[in-house]
Amino acid sequence: MYLARVEGNVTATRKHPSLESWRLVICQPISNSGEPEGVPQVAIDGHGAAIHQRVIISSDGLAARKAVGDPRSPARWIIIGIVDEKEPGVPV
Amino acid sequence: MYLARVEGNVTATRKHPSLESWRLVICQPISNSGEPEGVPQVAIDGHGAAIHQRVIISSDGLAARKAVGDPRSPARWIIIGIVDEKEPGVPV
Amino acid sequence: MYLARVEGNVTATRKHPSLESWRLVICQPISNSGEPEGVPQVAIDGHGAAIHQRVIISSDGLAARKAVGDPRSPARWIIIGIVDEKEPGVPV
Amino acid sequence: MYLARVEGNVTATRKHPSLESWRLVICQPISNSGEPEGVPQVAIDGHGAAIHQRVIISSDGLAARKAVGDPRSPARWIIIGIVDEKEPGVPV
Amino acid sequence: MYLARVEGNVTATRKHPSLESWRLVICQPISNSGEPEGVPQVAIDGHGAAIHQRVIISSDGLAARKAVGDPRSPARWIIIGIVDEKEPGVPV
Repeated sequence: MYLARVEGNVTATRKHPSLESWRLVICQPISNSGEPEGVPQVAIDGHGAAIHQRVIISSDGLAARKAVGDPRSPARWIIIGIVDEKEPGVPV
Repeated sequence: MYLARVEGNVTATRKHPSLESWRLVICQPISNSGEPEGVPQVAIDGHGAAIHQRVIISSDGLAARKAVGDPRSPARWIIIGIVDEKEPGVPV
Repeated sequence: MYLARVEGNVTATRKHPSLESWRLVICQPISNSGEPEGVPQVAIDGHGAAIHQRVIISSDGLAARKAVGDPRSPARWIIIGIVDEKEPGVPV
Repeated sequence: MYLARVEGNVTATRKHPSLESWRLVICQPISNSGEPEGVPQVAIDGHGAAIHQRVIISSDGLAARKAVGDPRSPARWIIIGIVDEKEPGVPV
Repeated sequence: MYLARVEGNVTATRKHPSLESWRLVICQPISNSGEPEGVPQVAIDGHGAAIHQRVIISSDGLAARKAVGDPRSPARWIIIGIVDEKEPGVPV
C-alpha cells in the first residue's frame, strides 16, 4: 500500500471488459515528504480522486476482482483512500 | 498495473505448453511523461499491441491462467488495455 | 517482510470501509544499519507503534483480510512486530 | 515475467525437501538491449538452460508448486521459456 | 527467490503470535558476484543460518503459513536453502 499522488488519467478503448466504465489513474508513489519514489502504478478509482490529490493505493487481486465485480478481472491496483492529512505535518 | 511501452517481441520454442500460440512482448514501464521506470516485463498479448504502443499491463496469476485457459500456467503479466490518450496531455 | 521505521500517520476520511477505525502508518523500509531502502509503504497498525520506532511489516492479502475481519478488504501491508533489538548491535 | 540471462548455478544441500533434485539457477533480469535491470532471482529450471542463455522467468506460487509436485513448496520463480530470438533484432 | 546474505537477527517481543519461537533474520539480496542488490528482507529461519552465510529466500504466503503452522499468519519470507557453492566459482 503506497502513499501516492494522482498524476493523470488513462483512456483505453480496447481493454479487458471488466475495466469498462472504470476510471484508470496514474498514481506516483511518494515518500512521507512528498518526493516521488519508485515506479508509477495505474489504479482503478472508485473514489473520484482529483489530479495531484494524495491517495493510498493497494494491490490485491481478490479485492480488485470483488471491486469490479468480475472473478476473471486482471485488475490489481485500486485507490483505497483519499488522504486528508498526514502527521508529522507535511501539507497534503 | 503499469503504464508501459511495447519494446519488442520474444520468441521461445521451448516454453511452458500453456504459452503455446501466445505472443510474448517486452513492456517497459514508463512514467506519466513517458520516461522508462523500473524493470521491463514480458507480458502475454491478446490485444495485438504494436511496437512502441502504450499499454497497461497487470500481474495476476488467476486472471492470467484464465486468459490462457490452463489452471497450471505460470503466466502472470498480461496486456489488459491499449492506451488511447492520457490526461494531462502528453502525446501517446 | 521489511525492517522499517515508522515515519508518520495518514488520515483518510473517504476510504474502503474495512479500514474504518484502523490506524494507517507510513513505514520506510531500512537496511540493517538503518539507512532508508526502497519505497515507503502504508501499513495498518494494531500494535500501537510510535513514530520513529522500528517495526517489521509484511504484505499478505489473506492475513490482512483476517486481521481487519473483512473478506473483501484491499488491505495488504500490516505491522507484524515491534523491534526490541537487533544483532549485530546497531541501536534500535 | 522477466527477460533474464542465466548467470550461474546454486547448490544447497540443506534446503526445503520440495527442491530436492531441482536445478537452481541465478537469473539476472535484463532490458530489451541486454543490460542488467533490477535484482537477480534464483529460479528452478526444468528446461536445461545454459549459462548466459536468455530465458523468461515467472513468479507464481501455484504454478511453481504444481511444477515441483508439492502443495507445500515455497518455490516461486521458474524458468518458463528459453529465448530463441527477439525482435527488433538484438542478438540473443 | 533471492540469493541473499544473512546480516543480522531481529528480536521482537510484541509480534504476531504465529511468529512466536521463530528466529527472524535480516537477509540482504546479493548478485551473483556477492554485491548487495535491492531492499533487505526479514525472513523466518528454520535452517539455523549463520551470520554472513549465503541463503536462498522465497516469498510465498501459503508456504509460509504452512511452515509456521498457522493459517492466519502474516509471514511471507522464509529461508528455503543454505548455499553450499555457486558456479561459476565465486567463493560462498
